[in-house]
Amino acid sequence: MSEHTNKQFSAELELTRSSFLQMGGLVEAMVQEAMEALVTGELGLVDKVRERERDVNRLEVEIDERIGLLIARNQPAAVDLRLLLSVSKMLTDMERCGDEAEKIAKMARRLHEAESRYIPAVELRHISNHVVAMIRDVLDAFARDDAVHAATVVRNDKEVDKEWKAALRHLITYMMEDPRTISRSIDLIFIARSLERIGDHAKNMAERVIYMVHGDDVRHTGVKATERIARGESPDDIDA
Amino acid sequence: MSEHTNKQFSAELELTRSSFLQMGGLVEAMVQEAMEALVTGELGLVDKVRERERDVNRLEVEIDERIGLLIARNQPAAVDLRLLLSVSKMLTDMERCGDEAEKIAKMARRLHEAESRYIPAVELRHISNHVVAMIRDVLDAFARDDAVHAATVVRNDKEVDKEWKAALRHLITYMMEDPRTISRSIDLIFIARSLERIGDHAKNMAERVIYMVHGDDVRHTGVKATERIARGESPDDIDA
Repeated sequence: MSEHTNKQFSAELELTRSSFLQMGGLVEAMVQEAMEALVTGELGLVDKVRERERDVNRLEVEIDERIGLLIARNQPAAVDLRLLLSVSKMLTDMERCGDEAEKIAKMARRLHEAESRYIPAVELRHISNHVVAMIRDVLDAFARDDAVHAATVVRNDKEVDKEWKAALRHLITYMMEDPRTISRSIDLIFIARSLERIGDHAKNMAERVIYMVHGDDVRHTGVKATERIARGESPDDIDA
Repeated sequence: MSEHTNKQFSAELELTRSSFLQMGGLVEAMVQEAMEALVTGELGLVDKVRERERDVNRLEVEIDERIGLLIARNQPAAVDLRLLLSVSKMLTDMERCGDEAEKIAKMARRLHEAESRYIPAVELRHISNHVVAMIRDVLDAFARDDAVHAATVVRNDKEVDKEWKAALRHLITYMMEDPRTISRSIDLIFIARSLERIGDHAKNMAERVIYMVHGDDVRHTGVKATERIARGESPDDIDA
């Protein structure tokens, strides 16, 4: 590669990174706005989420196209190739987080248009804060090539799963006590489920960051082995 | 590339294709077996699904590793690169179909262990047949580089969405009429939701097959434009 090509390639890699971070920032905002719409009933936010969704879709396609071109033209190897392949996978998860945020926003509209008396859904706010933090953490870990920080996201997903199960139990109890709330509670269950899925996607992205940094595939290895690999240790070391 | 390297590369590409088809075959079986367990209560199938899930995970990691090596070593371009990038994305969707099948199998166990009297859930069987056919179609389309066939999967996903919404309405009515069925019905709603997601993943994979064949990204373009692109026409042609 000539020095010129090399410089241009580095610039293109940086652009790929920064575009993905931009896309991630939009998705983070979408989740927050969708939940804000749900809690406050401010339905202008629903339109905002839907607008952002179009930007996210556009970025997904653009970034993927650039990745294909960069691999074809510049024939990257090792860490550069891992960056590009990782972003290509993370794009999919990020876009689906955006889809889930859009579903939440639509559900918020339906719930608020259907009735004035409304469940404040405090518990969901809690899961929501949790998964928004996970998206932010995975973006930070990606921006700083920080595998250890990425591993915390993998661990946090376990917490979100617990919170989701607790919210589900609570909503089922609520429906049983007052069957008139069934329809509304089902909507809330789907919102909780969407949040849980966003946590899952954040975990998937975190696993890709670890792959990007170390070249090890930590999908299906369990949290403890993931944390060891993220620290650069052997996955089979005895726990300290 | 020397003739030898070239031959070896072609063989590796074929192996990548056939491994993905093998993985797809496992996932197709998992969905069928999970639903069979649900409908018949034959819980040995649940263990079978969980075993297959491990094979699917192993294949996911192996195929992805081979793709990374092939891109780094052989620096493929054009259609070969599109094949590898497409399979890399499809792997994720396929593995998640397997996850959904495993969730269904676990739910089947819980439902059958909890009570003897049981809802036959005929409607779910219908959605299930539909999404299994979609997985099979997308594998066929992939094996034969058939973009037009892939586009039928994208269209079929609309049908699955309708069936899912109908099943949901039915189950909500059921709960309202007899609140004692709430807990069980929620489980069935999640099974229906898993099936709907499998349909979604099949659609995503079908879009990747079209990209592989034509090099056009049809995510977010709508069904009609997708069908035109799959036929090799301009996306903006007037409908015949």
